[in-house]
Amino acid sequence: MKALMAATTSLGILTLGSSVVDHAVAQAAKSQSVTRAGSQPSTKGPAEYFTGNARVDPLFAANESAPYSGAYVTFEPGARSNWHTHPAGQRLIVTYGVGRTQEWGGPVVEVRAGDHIWCPPGVKHWHGASPTTPMTHLTLSGMRDGKNVEWLERVTDEQYGR
Amino acid sequence: MKALMAATTSLGILTLGSSVVDHAVAQAAKSQSVTRAGSQPSTKGPAEYFTGNARVDPLFAANESAPYSGAYVTFEPGARSNWHTHPAGQRLIVTYGVGRTQEWGGPVVEVRAGDHIWCPPGVKHWHGASPTTPMTHLTLSGMRDGKNVEWLERVTDEQYGR
Repeated sequence: MKALMAATTSLGILTLGSSVVDHAVAQAAKSQSVTRAGSQPSTKGPAEYFTGNARVDPLFAANESAPYSGAYVTFEPGARSNWHTHPAGQRLIVTYGVGRTQEWGGPVVEVRAGDHIWCPPGVKHWHGASPTTPMTHLTLSGMRDGKNVEWLERVTDEQYGR
Repeated sequence: MKALMAATTSLGILTLGSSVVDHAVAQAAKSQSVTRAGSQPSTKGPAEYFTGNARVDPLFAANESAPYSGAYVTFEPGARSNWHTHPAGQRLIVTYGVGRTQEWGGPVVEVRAGDHIWCPPGVKHWHGASPTTPMTHLTLSGMRDGKNVEWLERVTDEQYGR
């Protein structure tokens, strides 16, 4: 902690850089750390698990004290995940646009910015954009035995309700 | 799960109401549930724990599978929390504006929309707005033994750096 504090003090207010964040990680959770917008590259949702274009903007990994990972995921119009389950459940907070989600055996449900979803462990679901507008949500995925998702089959156009 | 599905089916797509959410809670985490924007009243951050105006927009409580509560907290310009610790740590994701945070013994650090913060268990810190602009963050606070925060003394104007 002393080393981190020395580093941040020398950088001063308003100039905390990514090197300090790296340092904070190395300090193994003894000090508060700040991760800056733009410091982690986005990735594309793999075609194996997504229909259409999905972008993943990673935020943080699970740790011992907070056993859930976090990322913003944005679906372009018509895009959606495959069916899948989460071994320790998932919280989704819709931050932009209009999307859809469905639990296996249930109806397709529309979700809008400001809505949030709780998917309990083992419940089979999918989530994605509406057919005509994008949807961004913050995903908080619980980790169990090193896994936070179990991918299943593709969501057909008929299931999606296109 | 069947009862929830019946309820959602009868409501149909795009009309899932808060009564279904209540039902989902009663179903004790067997089904996916949607909580709608605007369905939970905001509260004011108590003067005992906050300097200036802070508004808490609650999202969700901790549960057994996801042991952290979530809320958006908005600080008006100049507002900040008291010093405090979190027994199971806290993640903060800045969603709007410009704010400040500080760990005990360290410098005041500016944070901006898109930045996120990890505060490990037991680390004494505060967070708030900048002196001239507001800051909104999503707070994810770990729960340990039924507690997610330990409130301490007020952040003085000198500490805040006004």
